[in-house]
Amino acid sequence: MTNSRAVVLLSGGMDSATAAAMTKARGFELYALSFRYGQRHALELEAARRVAAHLGAARHAIVDIDLRAFGGSALTAEIAVPKDRPADVIGSGVPITYVPARNTIFLSFALAWAETLGITDLVMGVNALDYSGYPDCRPEYIAAFQHLANLATRAGTELKQRFTIHTPLILLSKREIVERGTALGLDYGLTLSCYDPSAAGEACGHCDACQLRLKGFREAGMEDPGRYQTAKSVNSEQ
Amino acid sequence: MTNSRAVVLLSGGMDSATAAAMTKARGFELYALSFRYGQRHALELEAARRVAAHLGAARHAIVDIDLRAFGGSALTAEIAVPKDRPADVIGSGVPITYVPARNTIFLSFALAWAETLGITDLVMGVNALDYSGYPDCRPEYIAAFQHLANLATRAGTELKQRFTIHTPLILLSKREIVERGTALGLDYGLTLSCYDPSAAGEACGHCDACQLRLKGFREAGMEDPGRYQTAKSVNSEQ
Repeated sequence: MTNSRAVVLLSGGMDSATAAAMTKARGFELYALSFRYGQRHALELEAARRVAAHLGAARHAIVDIDLRAFGGSALTAEIAVPKDRPADVIGSGVPITYVPARNTIFLSFALAWAETLGITDLVMGVNALDYSGYPDCRPEYIAAFQHLANLATRAGTELKQRFTIHTPLILLSKREIVERGTALGLDYGLTLSCYDPSAAGEACGHCDACQLRLKGFREAGMEDPGRYQTAKSVNSEQ
Repeated sequence: MTNSRAVVLLSGGMDSATAAAMTKARGFELYALSFRYGQRHALELEAARRVAAHLGAARHAIVDIDLRAFGGSALTAEIAVPKDRPADVIGSGVPITYVPARNTIFLSFALAWAETLGITDLVMGVNALDYSGYPDCRPEYIAAFQHLANLATRAGTELKQRFTIHTPLILLSKREIVERGTALGLDYGLTLSCYDPSAAGEACGHCDACQLRLKGFREAGMEDPGRYQTAKSVNSEQ
C-alpha cells in the first residue's frame, strides 16, 4: 500500500469504475471527478455518485460544463443514438456519438484539480480495444496529453514534478475489464454505461456502449447485474 | 483576403484584442470565445463583448466554467492580487495569479468549438516576452497543444485536417503589441487588462498586468486610453 492520491475521472460507466477500483487496489486514495454536461446524461452522474461511495473516494467533485453551446454530438444534442449496429461496424470509424474534444476538456479539468491538490497521478478508464472508434481514447493521445500536462503547469515546470496519466484499461478487452473489476469486488450493478437510458435509469441494451458491455459479460461467462429496459443485446445474442 | 474562419480566445485584455485584430487583418472571420469563471472577473467579459463588436466578430460565444470549485488562484479565489512589484520581479517565477491548467482548459473548449464549426485555425494572444511567468504561455506549450489537438479529434485523424494554434504575439514586446494594434485601428480604450479593477471597471494601475500594459504604452510613446482608478503605474513612473 502506498500513501498516494490520484484524481480519477469517473463517468458512472463500467470502464471508469473498473479503472477506479484498480487504482484503489494499488493503494491510491481516490479523488473522483465527474462532469455535468447537458441534461441528457444526468443519470450517469447518479451512477458515478454510487460508484464513488462504493469505492470510498476521499472526495467526489462534479464540474458543470456546457458543451451544448457548441452542439454536434449525440451525447449532448438531440441526435438519435445508433442502435443494434453489428459488432464489425462498432469501432470501424468515429461514430456520431463522438463529442468534439471531450476527453481533452475532461483531462484539462482533471489536471487543474490535481495541481490544486498537489496530486500528480491522473487516471482515465479509456480503452483502445473493444472501443468505439474515438480518437481521444488511443495511447498516442494519452501520451500527448501527459507531455502537455508537464509543460502546462507550475507543478511540471517550476516544481519539477511529473504528471502521469494512468490508463489501466487501455489494452484490456471488455471481457478482461469485467474480470478485473469482479475480482476486486466491484459491483457493476451500480454502473450505467448506456448512451440512451430510460428515465428510470435502465439501459437500452442496443446502443454501442450496451452492446460492448454485454459482450464483455457474455465472454466472461457472467450475467450483467445492470438494469435493462427490455431483452438485452439483440445483436450480441445472434 | 482569405475566406477563412478562426476561433479566437478573447479575454477582454489588450493582448487577446490585439491578436484578434491581427487575425482579422489577415482576412479571417472571427469566432470569438470567452469564459465566465468566477465572479471576480466579470468586467473582463464586458470588455470582451466590446472588443468582439468593435472587430465585427461573426459570433461571440461565452462559456461558463467554474474553476472556483478547485480554488488555488488569485483570479478565482479571494487571494490578494500583488501590487507594485518591481519590473525585474514580474516574470521571474510563476506568480500567485497563476490558475492551474487554465490555458489548457481554455484551448480545450476552443478546440471543441472549432471542430464543431469545421474550423482548424485557433488564435491565442499569449506572449512569452514581457509575460508574467506563466508556464502555459510558452512556445513549447503551444506546440504541445497543437500536437495534442491533431491526435484528439475526428478532424485531425479521420478527416486528415490539421489544426494550427496561432500565437501572433508570442515573441512581441508589449511595446510592439501596442504599436501593431494601434496601426490596425484597435481602440485599446475598450479593453481591460487589470487583475483587480474597481466595480466601475477602472484598472488599478498597480498589478502586474497593469504595469506591463503601461510599460508597453510608455515605450511606444503613447497614452493608454484605458480608464484607471488613480494615478497610473507607481513603479513604472520611477
